[in-house]
This record gives sequence, structure tokens and C-alpha cells, in this order.
Amino acid sequence: MSCVASASKHEGVAAQAHAPGGPRVIVAGATGFTGALAAHLLWRHPDFELAAVSGRSELGRRLQDVYPRYRVPMLIEPLEVERLEGVDAAVVAYPHAAAAPTVGALRELGTRVVDLSADFRLSSLPTYERWYGEHPRPDLLGDAVYGLTELHRDRIAGAAIVANPGCYPTASLLALAPLARAGLIVDVVIDAKQGISGAGRVFDETTHLSMAGENIVPYKVAAHRHTPEIEEQLGELDPAHRQLKVQFQAHLVPLDQGELASCYVTTTRPVAADELRGLYADAYADEPFVELVEGPPGVLEVRETNYCRVFAAADQHTGKVVAFGAIDNLWKGTSSQAVQNLNLMFGYPETLGLT
Amino acid sequence: MSCVASASKHEGVAAQAHAPGGPRVIVAGATGFTGALAAHLLWRHPDFELAAVSGRSELGRRLQDVYPRYRVPMLIEPLEVERLEGVDAAVVAYPHAAAAPTVGALRELGTRVVDLSADFRLSSLPTYERWYGEHPRPDLLGDAVYGLTELHRDRIAGAAIVANPGCYPTASLLALAPLARAGLIVDVVIDAKQGISGAGRVFDETTHLSMAGENIVPYKVAAHRHTPEIEEQLGELDPAHRQLKVQFQAHLVPLDQGELASCYVTTTRPVAADELRGLYADAYADEPFVELVEGPPGVLEVRETNYCRVFAAADQHTGKVVAFGAIDNLWKGTSSQAVQNLNLMFGYPETLGLT
Amino acid sequence: MSCVASASKHEGVAAQAHAPGGPRVIVAGATGFTGALAAHLLWRHPDFELAAVSGRSELGRRLQDVYPRYRVPMLIEPLEVERLEGVDAAVVAYPHAAAAPTVGALRELGTRVVDLSADFRLSSLPTYERWYGEHPRPDLLGDAVYGLTELHRDRIAGAAIVANPGCYPTASLLALAPLARAGLIVDVVIDAKQGISGAGRVFDETTHLSMAGENIVPYKVAAHRHTPEIEEQLGELDPAHRQLKVQFQAHLVPLDQGELASCYVTTTRPVAADELRGLYADAYADEPFVELVEGPPGVLEVRETNYCRVFAAADQHTGKVVAFGAIDNLWKGTSSQAVQNLNLMFGYPETLGLT
Amino acid sequence: MSCVASASKHEGVAAQAHAPGGPRVIVAGATGFTGALAAHLLWRHPDFELAAVSGRSELGRRLQDVYPRYRVPMLIEPLEVERLEGVDAAVVAYPHAAAAPTVGALRELGTRVVDLSADFRLSSLPTYERWYGEHPRPDLLGDAVYGLTELHRDRIAGAAIVANPGCYPTASLLALAPLARAGLIVDVVIDAKQGISGAGRVFDETTHLSMAGENIVPYKVAAHRHTPEIEEQLGELDPAHRQLKVQFQAHLVPLDQGELASCYVTTTRPVAADELRGLYADAYADEPFVELVEGPPGVLEVRETNYCRVFAAADQHTGKVVAFGAIDNLWKGTSSQAVQNLNLMFGYPETLGLT
Repeated sequence: MSCVASASKHEGVAAQAHAPGGPRVIVAGATGFTGALAAHLLWRHPDFELAAVSGRSELGRRLQDVYPRYRVPMLIEPLEVERLEGVDAAVVAYPHAAAAPTVGALRELGTRVVDLSADFRLSSLPTYERWYGEHPRPDLLGDAVYGLTELHRDRIAGAAIVANPGCYPTASLLALAPLARAGLIVDVVIDAKQGISGAGRVFDETTHLSMAGENIVPYKVAAHRHTPEIEEQLGELDPAHRQLKVQFQAHLVPLDQGELASCYVTTTRPVAADELRGLYADAYADEPFVELVEGPPGVLEVRETNYCRVFAAADQHTGKVVAFGAIDNLWKGTSSQAVQNLNLMFGYPETLGLT
Repeated sequence: MSCVASASKHEGVAAQAHAPGGPRVIVAGATGFTGALAAHLLWRHPDFELAAVSGRSELGRRLQDVYPRYRVPMLIEPLEVERLEGVDAAVVAYPHAAAAPTVGALRELGTRVVDLSADFRLSSLPTYERWYGEHPRPDLLGDAVYGLTELHRDRIAGAAIVANPGCYPTASLLALAPLARAGLIVDVVIDAKQGISGAGRVFDETTHLSMAGENIVPYKVAAHRHTPEIEEQLGELDPAHRQLKVQFQAHLVPLDQGELASCYVTTTRPVAADELRGLYADAYADEPFVELVEGPPGVLEVRETNYCRVFAAADQHTGKVVAFGAIDNLWKGTSSQAVQNLNLMFGYPETLGLT
Repeated sequence: MSCVASASKHEGVAAQAHAPGGPRVIVAGATGFTGALAAHLLWRHPDFELAAVSGRSELGRRLQDVYPRYRVPMLIEPLEVERLEGVDAAVVAYPHAAAAPTVGALRELGTRVVDLSADFRLSSLPTYERWYGEHPRPDLLGDAVYGLTELHRDRIAGAAIVANPGCYPTASLLALAPLARAGLIVDVVIDAKQGISGAGRVFDETTHLSMAGENIVPYKVAAHRHTPEIEEQLGELDPAHRQLKVQFQAHLVPLDQGELASCYVTTTRPVAADELRGLYADAYADEPFVELVEGPPGVLEVRETNYCRVFAAADQHTGKVVAFGAIDNLWKGTSSQAVQNLNLMFGYPETLGLT
Repeated sequence: MSCVASASKHEGVAAQAHAPGGPRVIVAGATGFTGALAAHLLWRHPDFELAAVSGRSELGRRLQDVYPRYRVPMLIEPLEVERLEGVDAAVVAYPHAAAAPTVGALRELGTRVVDLSADFRLSSLPTYERWYGEHPRPDLLGDAVYGLTELHRDRIAGAAIVANPGCYPTASLLALAPLARAGLIVDVVIDAKQGISGAGRVFDETTHLSMAGENIVPYKVAAHRHTPEIEEQLGELDPAHRQLKVQFQAHLVPLDQGELASCYVTTTRPVAADELRGLYADAYADEPFVELVEGPPGVLEVRETNYCRVFAAADQHTGKVVAFGAIDNLWKGTSSQAVQNLNLMFGYPETLGLT
């Protein structure tokens, strides 16, 4: 389906949303859910100029014909890195291992990159190899900064490569960071639930409404690759517990966008409700996109926003701390956090184009 | 649930979204779905200042505690019309018959009103009385303009009272207007489907997920009050067929927001595909919020937007014309159309704050 | 995923559900939604013996590993018609045009067939060719009986080939038959809504939960192949109006199983409420699977049953009659109606194994 | 809405489904989700005779008019225990604390009871009082047997009162019992997810499709009353770890029926995959309603059945055991398990009327 409305009108709309003159950003891999959303957010951003959207399929179609909701009238083109000129930054939305070579090629042109894949999220090469196999560009690992904005804001601002976090680590780490920084985490179980958009633009039994609707399904039992990413970041926050093994389990539930990480923490010592509240309030007092709430958060409250809602409570019965992080997996979990990072990288207010 | 984040931060956010200095608008009845959304849209609008949100329940809570998604930090207050001062406009989101007295009181203060109820949608008092019973303020009928922006743009700009259309008439009339204007409609069946948000913040068997999910239910069979509204407007567009009786039927389907009007038109004479395409292209060439598409539109394509997608086709088999209008019932169907109208009433570009 | 429980246990269950000794029935095409359900219903049927389940994919897997809900432990095998022996009947669940040759081969063995495809639904070859192209086995058309049980019960009992109706014609015809028999229908618009299971085990944008959920989408605008099937049957019921052209339009709505046909009928003369009630009561007084209801039926009321709920009302405003038929598209719309027909074909009570 | 079909027909159907002559069972509280389903299962049961359905609301309506899917044509009556005669058993579907007095009155008549409330689930009065407050009939605690069939089959057969388990304990205990019996559980986190039917026939923001759909919400954080029930039963299975505190957390996800308990177990010692498999295979080899599966179970696989699917895996990374239990919360989680227990209590095969 495509719009029959006259091109001139759409060009008018485009001109309105477009921001010629600002930093030029491309999206590589714009036909997947996260790449398309990144393109949409950049298109409507007041300062960035969306310079191109590329894909391996749907070539020659306009992005808005593939994703009608996003109303980005640009044509999907093949990515030809050698022909890129005057591009200031790229969002790379490729699968793991496929991303690193493109990131490398872009770096050679001097383009700054926000990479949505896992290729540069782990600073430890042995850990990467244990979970993912051989790394295509280990030489670039040192140039990458882990892109959970709230944890690495300063380093992201100057980074050549920002390794945008996984959606599960985003929700989990924001729920756990105040405890980790206080050195309190001895053991943690993370039970995460996500909408079907988390499976991406994949067409199989996982995503068919007749099979995925009215269902709750755990997946990748005892082997989810987001585990080492969470462990490495918790280890940075709390070096004394660097050896902590995280029990992480993902589930698909029947909605489109939304993700909740429920975290069950065994602490080094009892934590009173007041102390807990203080830890979280201090950690997030100045964060524009973390909303500390006083009761259990629902993912609908953050849908299509860059917010993460966080709630923590001490369980008097067991002595454990229960902490929740609720996000939109496609937004704060991926694409709007990429824009949050781009804002930092180009000196804009972090919230620009996101509220 | 309410945010524990420091008030100062939220006030900061508020200040950012708020627009002191612009026309001051209140929302009366902000605790229902449509009033809350109107408040949200006005809060984030670059020029209007949301001056107050009132309700009959939830008093003293912040609107964002009742509707977390909308992030409007204002307190819900009782409406005291006599104490209103310096308010330029009001969106009244009350039930039918309950709205008219408040609209009257606001008019006596000189406040311009966009009324979301049916109270001022029908210009004919006898028609109103036949479908709704006695009218509380028939004296004001002459001051009201029917607020389907695309049909009455000029009169809306100067109106004292804008009677915002029903959601079903909005989708139906935008699908049918080009045919009506051409005098082509002899008979029409409108089969409309709507998400559960159309039932409003009502808690009963109609809205319980266990009963409404996995269901399709027709309602108000052969008696929907949106019928005369559609008939009166079609009659204005095509006075020669003013006696046309519209067969209208509504259905609830299991989603939140979204509405499709499928219209089956018997025409005065055969209409060829080219002529049909020309009629619609001419009608909507300059409309910023009508998207003419080349295939059947899905409501997800317009979710949380002010767009209406329209598609019309001639059925070679039967000779009838099939026309579809797809909208978000809460947005273009109600609250964002109210803002579209307010923009016109105060001299702003029609699209301001809506794209 | 497959069950690890010991085979012996499942064989036990199998023996319990299985009915050795009764008529032997196979399901050809058991890996699709409708074939799998037919296998499930036959497996649990007290008298039929499910002799084999065949498919073109998933060979060697047990049906219950592909469709866990149905708990049919038989292996999926390739269909080798020449090796079939002692098979009394077959349910053929193949796509249109692919079914006819297999139906022909089965007939040559003397096997009675319930065909779920459209290949034998139309008695008129020219009509078939206009909508579907060349017919693979026109010689067999005369052997086939249209399998809408309530209309052709007697002929089905003795039929060699039962052409099981489409789901849309099932719901539509049961809603319309009493009016057609009375010669009342001058014009009819049928607006049908169906859950995503109607798209079958197809993996694309039509069925992905992120695209199909929260959506309402019309499809096959002005060209649905169920149209001639409805027209031919209405013509049989009311030969005087045999030239009636039916305006039929299908929509997908976000649920799994369920279908509603909303029918808008222009009648030859005004029909009073009492007359209408009488027509329907007379037509369906003895029907075990038609439930005449006094208000608009929801599809959830018939989910996973062979019932069709029917409701008709006269619209005082327009003079039209509005009639609804609600079914489960996979059950009464397809597979359980196939079993209902098999019951008749083998002399069992029509309701056996279905209540 | 009610059926207009002649009463005689329905009485015919009734007679068919009804089983006069068998043990007479009533359902007290048949207007709630679980009571209505119990009535449905008893109505279609080949041996029990459903003698009456009672409720406090909807009096004088037929149960099938309130729950169309269940097609139980009996009238809803007020419960008058003193007038009950010749009733062999009762299913009591009342809220906690409200159930005990009725259970007591029924016991005084000699009626055997399956109580769906929590009133008799805990054998320890102090534990009950700590979580629920004063107990209305502590004198009857000794007469009650905990009704998780797979754990207490023998005692249930002879019990006067069967305290039907909570849905969460059912799924959790079936997932954990083999580990508990082996004395392996040192610590356990249970993260449970349930469809909206778990909230019951309650009309509020928890169940409104616009708020509950597209959402994931934790509830009763750190305080769910199913916790002591799970702890007490695990203590019976493993007296050496009787002091174990269970970390239990419930979540609502947007579907109707279905529940998954994801259990994360710290074990006394490493458990190899083979040992784990053996433990579960031994525990459930002869269980007709426990399906041991080789991969993560989805709740759709057990929808509207009495089955519980169980899967356990050892996590090589953390050393923990991850175990899942998937049930239909209204069926095995409540009402079909009640029938399973009634079967035992009256000497029928456990599976009668349930497969």
C-alpha cells in the first residue's frame, strides 16, 4: 500500500519534519523494527538530519510504505559505505556479527556510530567469544563505550562507537544499579517479560497471533546472551562482586511493545525500606528519563516513550529486595536510547526530540 | 501510584511542556478517556496553556496518577465556572445532556467552547429530541458549528461553540464526503468497528478483558445515535438526497484504540475507477490530515495520530462503491480533532502540536 | 518441543480416545489449522477411527508436537493414495485447485470425501472458472453436495463428496436463509469480521502479532471468492432472486478464533418484528447447532463449538433487516462442520462428538 | 441476552448432558469465573448430577445467560443450606473468610465439600492468622486435606473437606515437588504470570481492556498470600528445609486464561541434567495430568485443560535449577482440579469428564 496523495504535499511535510543543516545521520538496517523506529525518531528530531535509510530488502520502497505508522517518506537504499560523504553519524541496526564489519567501515570514514547490535557491548573479548563466537573486529573494542546513558553519560559524549545496550540489560540495570553501586548484591534472579515486538520482524510460530496471542512462553532457557552484558556492567558498578553470576530468564507475552524486568536480590545485609528509598532517590534524582514510582509499574505507562519506571521494595518475609524496571523495549530498550546517546554525542540536550 | 521523584524536577518538566502566555484552555471532564487525552495534547502543545483540568472524581489527584501515560502533573479540581477568569477556551468532555448546561455557563463568561458531547452536533432540534430527548439549552444551537474540520473549516475558525463530531461520523463522513458532494449516494450501509477505548472509562462486561478480548460484538443494533449526525451532514453536502436514511451499525473488537468505518454505497449511476479516484484526490489534495491510500487501510497505521486514512473502490461485481475511513477513535475521532479545531479558532496553523 | 513422558502412557491415552472398529477416516493436509482441528475432533470422536494424518511438511513429527493443544499422538505421513486401503472417508484440507486431484484419486478408491477447499462448492462450472480459473476435475462436480448441514442435510447423508462451505458463507447463509426462503431479499451487504486464525498457518505481516494485534484491516476489497458461493446458495433458496449480487467484504480483527457476519438486507416489502421472529424461529426450531438469540451475539459465545448464533432485527429507521451470524471460523466455519457432515454420512446422530 | 429457542429443546440438551442418578453436587457461588466453570464441568460430567447453582447476584437468571459459553441452563438461586437435602457434595466458590461458615454449615449436613477459597489450605492456624486474620471456623481445619491431587491423592479420596489449592501454588508446587522431595531446595524465587481471568469477575482498572491489554503489571509486591501455602507444602515434602522462605511474585499479563510459574532454585549441591531428568520422570511417570516436556512450555498448550506442563533445566552458568509449571489458572488452577478431586472422593477414575 502506498499513499496516492501528491508528492508535493509529502515533501512539504518532510520539509517540516526534516532538519537540514544539523548533523547528518543515516540508519543502516532501517527495515527492521528498531532501525525503522530510529529513522522515525531522527526524522522528527528538531536538529538531526536523517540523511539516508538503508536496508537489504524492500529496496526502492519508501520507509513509510513498509512502516505506515512512521511516516518517513525516504526511499530505502542499499548501503554503500564507500559512497557516504558528509555523514556525521550512523545508527547501525544489524544482527550480531553482521554489524561489526559495517561499524568498522564507517569508522574508517570518521563516522561516529551508535551500534544496536551486541558486537561492542562487552569489553572483554574472551567473554564475547564464549557467548557469541569469534569477533569480526576485536581491534575496535577499545573504541566502544557501553551506551546505557544513565551509567556512562560522560564517556558516551565523546565516544567514537556507542554500543547501545540490549533491551533486557537496560531495564535490569536501571532497576539494579543503585543496589550494585552500594555493594549490596550477593545474588540476583532476573525474570524478564517482553512483548512480541522483541522478536523483531520475524515471521514464524513465535510471532503468529494465533500462537503468540493468549500465550506466555519462556525462551532461551538458561542461556540468554544478555546475561554477560548485565554481569559485566554490575561488575563495573560493584567491583567487589565482579564474580556474581546472574540468573536471567526471558519470556514472551502477548502484547506488542513493552518490557518488564523483575529482579530478586539477595543482599549482603538487611536493607530497610528507608535506606532503599534513599538509595534509589539519590541515584535517580536528576535523571530525566528514570521515573521512580511508589508502586509496581506497568509497561503501558512507558509505552512509546524513552522513560524507564523503576520501583524497589524490601520483602519483610524473605529479606530479599525486589526491584522492577519497566520500559518500551523498542524505545528506551533500543531506538530512543540511541537518539538519547546521539544527543549527547553532538552536544544537544539529552531530551531533545524525545519528550 | 504516584511519582516520588522530587517535585522540582516535575515542575521543570512541566515548565518545559507548558506554554505560559498563550491562550488559556481548560478541560472540563478530564478524568474520562477523551478529556484526559485532550489535556495531554494541550499540555504538550507549543502555544496553548492548559489552565486547569477538572473532574467529578479523582479530585486532588494529579492527572498523571490517573493516566500515567499522559504525564500531566496538574491536580484534578472540581469545576467552578463562576470562578473561572481569564480562560479563553474550554474543552467540555461530559456525557450527552450533561454538557449543555456547562457549555451555556461558559458561554455566558465569553469562553469559547469545544464540546465533545452530542449536545450541539445536530442543527435540527426536532431531530435531537427524537434521538436524545429534551435539549437542555436549545437557545444555543444557533451558536454551534459542527466540528468536522475538513468540512467546516471556515465556520469553525469563528465559532463560539464547536460541536466536536462523534468518532463514527468522523470516519464515516470523511470516507463518504466526496461521493456525497457529487450527489452520488442513493443508499449507504456503514459498518463500523471500534476498539474498547470507545466504551470509555466504564467498568463492566463490555470492557473486562476476559469478556471483551477474543470477542467481536455488535451493539446498539438498529438504533445508534450517531446516525442522525451522519445523515444531517450528508444532507448538507448533497441537499438533493437530504432524505437519505443511513444504515449504521457499530461493533466492538478487541483492541484499545482504533476505528474503521466500512461504507457500502449504492450510487445514482455507475462510477468508474478513474472518476472515483479523481473525486477523492480533488477532495483531499490539500488536507493535511487525510491520507488517501491505494489499498485497504489498517487502523494501526493511524494509531495515536490525527490522521484519517481513506480508501475507495468501485466493485465491478455489484456496481456499488466501497469506501473506508480509518482513524484513532480517541484522537481524530475526538480529542486531537478538538485541538485541530482549537488551532483554527485561535489562528494557529491547523497542524500545530499534532504532528 | 515434544513430550518426554513415556510412550506407554500416551498410548494409553490414545487407546482411550481412539475408537478402533468404527469407520476409518484420514485427514489429508493435517498440518494446517483446519486439518489439524479436524484430526483432533476425529481423534476424540467416540465412533470414528482416525486412521492417518498426512501432510507435506512436518513429516515424521507427531501432530501433537506441531499442535500441542490437540494432543493427537499420530505421526504425520506423506499421503500415498494408492496405498490407502480400508479407509472409509477422508477429510481433505488442501488449498483450492490442489484439492480436486486428490479428491478424484480418493473417489476412485471408493473413499467418501469431505473437502474443505472451494473446489466443489460451486455447482456452476462457469462461475467457478470466473472466480478461480480452470477446474482440475469438472467431471466430479455432479457428485458433490454443498455441505452447509442445515441447508442440505438429506443430500449430505448420501453424498460421495461433501463440499464443506467456506467459513464466511456458513455464518452469512445461516443469518440470511430464513429471509431468502421467504423470498424477501432484494439487496444485501455482508460485512464480515474474522480472527487471525482465518489467515491460516501463514507467516507474514498479516499474522505477526505486532502488525495484526491492535489492528482492524479489510482485505480482498470488492473481490472475495466467497461471494459466488453465497450467491449460488441464496439463489437455490430463492430462485426468483437468483440474479442477486451480494456485496461481501471481509476484515481481520485481532483475536485468534471467531467470526461475525453482519448482514444488511433490503427487503421486498416491510417486515415487522413479529414476522421476522417467526421466520427465524420456524427455520431453526429443530436445529441442534443454531442458537437463536434475542440480542447481538458475540463470537466468544461460540468459541470452540459447532454452534452458530443468529440474531435478526428490523430497523425501524431505515426499513432494512439487520441479521448477524456468529461462529468459530475453525469449528462450525470449517472443521467441526466437517465432522457434523461425517456424522450424517455414516448414520450417526449429527451432534455425536461435538457437544 | 437469552436464548429464545424453545425451552423443550434446551431441556433436551440438558437431559443429554445431565446425569441423573449419580452423586448430586451443588456449586455455591456459581456467578464468579471459577464457580461458573465448575458448574459447566459438572454439568457435562458423565456421572455427577449438578443439583443446583447458587449465587448472591444474577438471581433468577440462567447460568448460561451470564456465561453464554458454558451453556448451563439452570437457574441461579440463593443458597439455603438448611433446605439442602440429598446433596452429596458441594463446590464452594466464595471469597476467603466468607467460605468457612458455609463450609461449616454444609459439613453439619454431612455434605462433602471442595472449597475453592484459602480458608482450609493452611494446616497451621497461626500461619493462617498471620496472613489472613482471624479464622471463622478453626475447628474444621483438622477435617481438611490440601487438594493438590498429585501430592495428596490418597487423603483426598477420603476427605470431608478438600481445600482446593490456589492456582499459583498448583503451578509452582508441580514444578518444584521433585526437587523438594529430593531435599534439594535451599532457596527459591517464583515469578508467576497470569491472564486477566485471574482477577475474576471484577470490574476495575485491573481488568479494563484499555488498561490491562498491552500491559504487564506486577501486583501484591512482596506480600502475596499464596506464599505460605507454597511454603507449607514444600515443608511437608522436605521437612529438613521446613524453614525455607519462598520469594513469590505475581504479574498480570494481557490474555484471558493461562498461568506460568517460573521457579529459580538454589540447590544444596550441583544437580546434573541427567539426575534432574530422572527426578522429574520418576515423580510424574504415572500422572495423567502432568506433562513433562523437553522445552519451555507455553500456557496456550494447556488452555482449557486440566494438564500441567512441567519443564526443568539445570543452568550451567549459575548452577541453579530453573523449573516451569504451566497451567490454565481457571482449570487445573481451580475448577477442573476441583472436579479431579471430586472424582477421587466418589471413587471415579480421576480423569473422568476431564479429557
